Amino acid sequence: MVADDFQPIFKPRTIAVIGASSDPRKFGGQTYLAVKGRVDDEKIYAVNPNVPEINGEKTYPRIQDISDDIDFAIIAVPASFVVQAVRDCAEKKVRAVEILSAGFTETGTGEGALWEKEITEIARQNGMRIIGPNCFGVYSPESALTILPGPDYPKETGPLGILAQSGGFTTNLARRVLELGMRISKAVSYGNACDMNEIDFLSYFGDDDRTRIVAGYIEGVRDGKLFIDTVKKITPEKPVIIWKGGLTGQGSRAVASHTASLAGSRERWKGFFRQSGAIPAGGISEMLDLIIGFHCVPDIQVKRFAVVGGGGAITVAAADALENEGLSILPFSGKTRQAIRAHLPPHGNSVKNPVDMGSPMFVPKPFKAILEAITESNIVDAVIIEQLILLFRDGFDEELAEAIHSVSTSSGKPVILTLPQTSTGSHVMEVEETRRKYREWYLSHSIPVFDTLERAVKVLGKIIRYNELRDKR
Amino acid sequence: MVADDFQPIFKPRTIAVIGASSDPRKFGGQTYLAVKGRVDDEKIYAVNPNVPEINGEKTYPRIQDISDDIDFAIIAVPASFVVQAVRDCAEKKVRAVEILSAGFTETGTGEGALWEKEITEIARQNGMRIIGPNCFGVYSPESALTILPGPDYPKETGPLGILAQSGGFTTNLARRVLELGMRISKAVSYGNACDMNEIDFLSYFGDDDRTRIVAGYIEGVRDGKLFIDTVKKITPEKPVIIWKGGLTGQGSRAVASHTASLAGSRERWKGFFRQSGAIPAGGISEMLDLIIGFHCVPDIQVKRFAVVGGGGAITVAAADALENEGLSILPFSGKTRQAIRAHLPPHGNSVKNPVDMGSPMFVPKPFKAILEAITESNIVDAVIIEQLILLFRDGFDEELAEAIHSVSTSSGKPVILTLPQTSTGSHVMEVEETRRKYREWYLSHSIPVFDTLERAVKVLGKIIRYNELRDKR
Repeated sequence: MVADDFQPIFKPRTIAVIGASSDPRKFGGQTYLAVKGRVDDEKIYAVNPNVPEINGEKTYPRIQDISDDIDFAIIAVPASFVVQAVRDCAEKKVRAVEILSAGFTETGTGEGALWEKEITEIARQNGMRIIGPNCFGVYSPESALTILPGPDYPKETGPLGILAQSGGFTTNLARRVLELGMRISKAVSYGNACDMNEIDFLSYFGDDDRTRIVAGYIEGVRDGKLFIDTVKKITPEKPVIIWKGGLTGQGSRAVASHTASLAGSRERWKGFFRQSGAIPAGGISEMLDLIIGFHCVPDIQVKRFAVVGGGGAITVAAADALENEGLSILPFSGKTRQAIRAHLPPHGNSVKNPVDMGSPMFVPKPFKAILEAITESNIVDAVIIEQLILLFRDGFDEELAEAIHSVSTSSGKPVILTLPQTSTGSHVMEVEETRRKYREWYLSHSIPVFDTLERAVKVLGKIIRYNELRDKR
Repeated sequence: MVADDFQPIFKPRTIAVIGASSDPRKFGGQTYLAVKGRVDDEKIYAVNPNVPEINGEKTYPRIQDISDDIDFAIIAVPASFVVQAVRDCAEKKVRAVEILSAGFTETGTGEGALWEKEITEIARQNGMRIIGPNCFGVYSPESALTILPGPDYPKETGPLGILAQSGGFTTNLARRVLELGMRISKAVSYGNACDMNEIDFLSYFGDDDRTRIVAGYIEGVRDGKLFIDTVKKITPEKPVIIWKGGLTGQGSRAVASHTASLAGSRERWKGFFRQSGAIPAGGISEMLDLIIGFHCVPDIQVKRFAVVGGGGAITVAAADALENEGLSILPFSGKTRQAIRAHLPPHGNSVKNPVDMGSPMFVPKPFKAILEAITESNIVDAVIIEQLILLFRDGFDEELAEAIHSVSTSSGKPVILTLPQTSTGSHVMEVEETRRKYREWYLSHSIPVFDTLERAVKVLGKIIRYNELRDKR
């Protein structure tokens, strides 16, 4: 499929919701209300033979009763009614459908498998495309389409493309990304993948100029060789982050119950990552970390880091974590050490690399001067700062944020932040709220923020290795 | 040292703060104000030749000017004054001192090393004990003593003993543990360990009936054999969780700048964990997870788990994570599957093990019935539930919590919860607040809660292996 073929899917002019209702507890109701509430230029039609109108809007007994042409249909009726709905869509010459309903091959029953085969054949014979069944559908910011339950997803577009066989994963990752202030080009949950599958969406994201980072949750693929070739074509241009579910025996059995996919062996998937240049993620949290990293510092290639923290254990942990990822902390020159020393008390800290400020309560003015001294060192290509947002704090955080941003900009050396969760209790939510506000501020200024040093360093290692590999090609 | 020797350290009747002031920005001021604010039976004396009184309380120029006997002295004066202060304490026949001041062997200068040698000798000659220097001191709930900055730490005691060479680590871990509602027997930050060291505090925690879990951050040990023997004696009775800082070349150099310890090689430390039965932690978050696990399900020994989640990807991830830790998910019998099926819609879920409820919005009544059916299965020894606290939620969480607790209690089968952070933005703090409230509620009912499935399973694996090993002895 070329990019134009996706127009009825990602930017349909007309949408029909088959199984629409006014009941937000039902998939059909939730979807209809969400899509209807997001309309810009599109025309939305409700199809339901059992209700004459929804919130004052006319409904149609069958999709064929609509006089307008229909680009895209959303099917949210019980599995046993889906074959007829797909037949109706084909007759109406609908260009593409997404089927939210479950009850197909993933049930392991003959009936469900037969239905899935039938709808796939109807679609192929009529040149109509299917997303699903057993999925949460498509979120396309430029259109009314949104995955479940995403009525509030923004209309603004961004650099991240998401594809996943799991609806829950898609909506979970999308929501977390959006809440951090980042934006999405498209997010597609494609379930059992009876027609359109990972190859289609990966190819689209590869071609799409807006998409700069691709993230996918994959349970199984139909054509291993084509999958590798498709990803291999994208990775020299854009990072492709893949979380593979079902790498163990137990996991592959769970995959069969979920989307009826063949999970494949751990060895084959190792080979895939090696050959394709895709970046493996071990779960949703690591995927989010990698997205943050590629969003803020996509081109980082350095290996010589300076670390600044407020406490000896933090600097020890940072030194350990960096070495474990093959990244270096070189000793500062005497000149750099002296320049840092001028802004610190004589004891209870360390002016070597890593720098231990002696206390997590960084004071903005000396902190800025120290950061300047560090970025002036020619054995430092980038700086990792562990900043603790604490209970007993004098409101220095804003000045610190400005200092970090300004030194990073003027020196041209990337700064990577870790803002650990220092508070765990429900009675100290203001600490976590402050932490999140600064995280959003830093991210909006292209300074990546991670929850722990270990996670920051793991992401940096993966981005640096990806960039090395990319440039060798 | 036997337990009685610790009375002047952990339950002193009289405390002198050398370097006391009314300035909370100084260590001496912060400590004096914190200790003074926590007094129960103890008498607190301020020593400072430069101020006549602090908040209306008389100060003494020298500790010798106090007529009362002094059990414990806190020294918070610049390094160059510490030798004299220690000499004064010895003359006054103080039983033990903690030295918060830094500027000793960790500076790498001859002067600091000489001072440290001198104070160590004075103490030995006079039978006085030293904690530190270069530390945050002792938190003992039954006394006024508290680590920095812990003026608000509770007087209530609990099962966790903490020892650490890093003050920042001690206060960070202690605060997170306390905020989760758990309590501490003692927390000791012992810095450069010129006199009292890990052996003393480990032995104390081993003997102390109140301490049920021991957690330590170690940069280096003086006597490797004695250290192994000491830990080996405790692990058949109590879990000893150790985070070893400085396992890499870079990390060991950072250790030298922090507490002047010899970090030791990775191989030697692997040998230590194998021989001693201690449980390795890779950082503060994992340590907290292990503490939660040992706090709530110390005796768990089962290997056959059931998993319940709301979404296919969750169940796939759980199955993968369990198998990676050597833990099993066995298939349910037809009877169990039927019993679960009775409470779920026909499609879009899975009644196999792991159970996919189809949606993360668990409805309490059917959820409870399903949990009962699962715990009745004889291939299930414990249940892991992934519950998502979400934005669009009908207030079912309380009923769910009651159901989980009641089924776990009546069946006698442990339930382990994961409550992932589903929200990341600063504008949706109520989701995180709700999540934390339920985490505290569950923990107070001995139901362990973890942030992710991977972390839950990692902790379960470590506890189960510890219990197996312990019972073989």
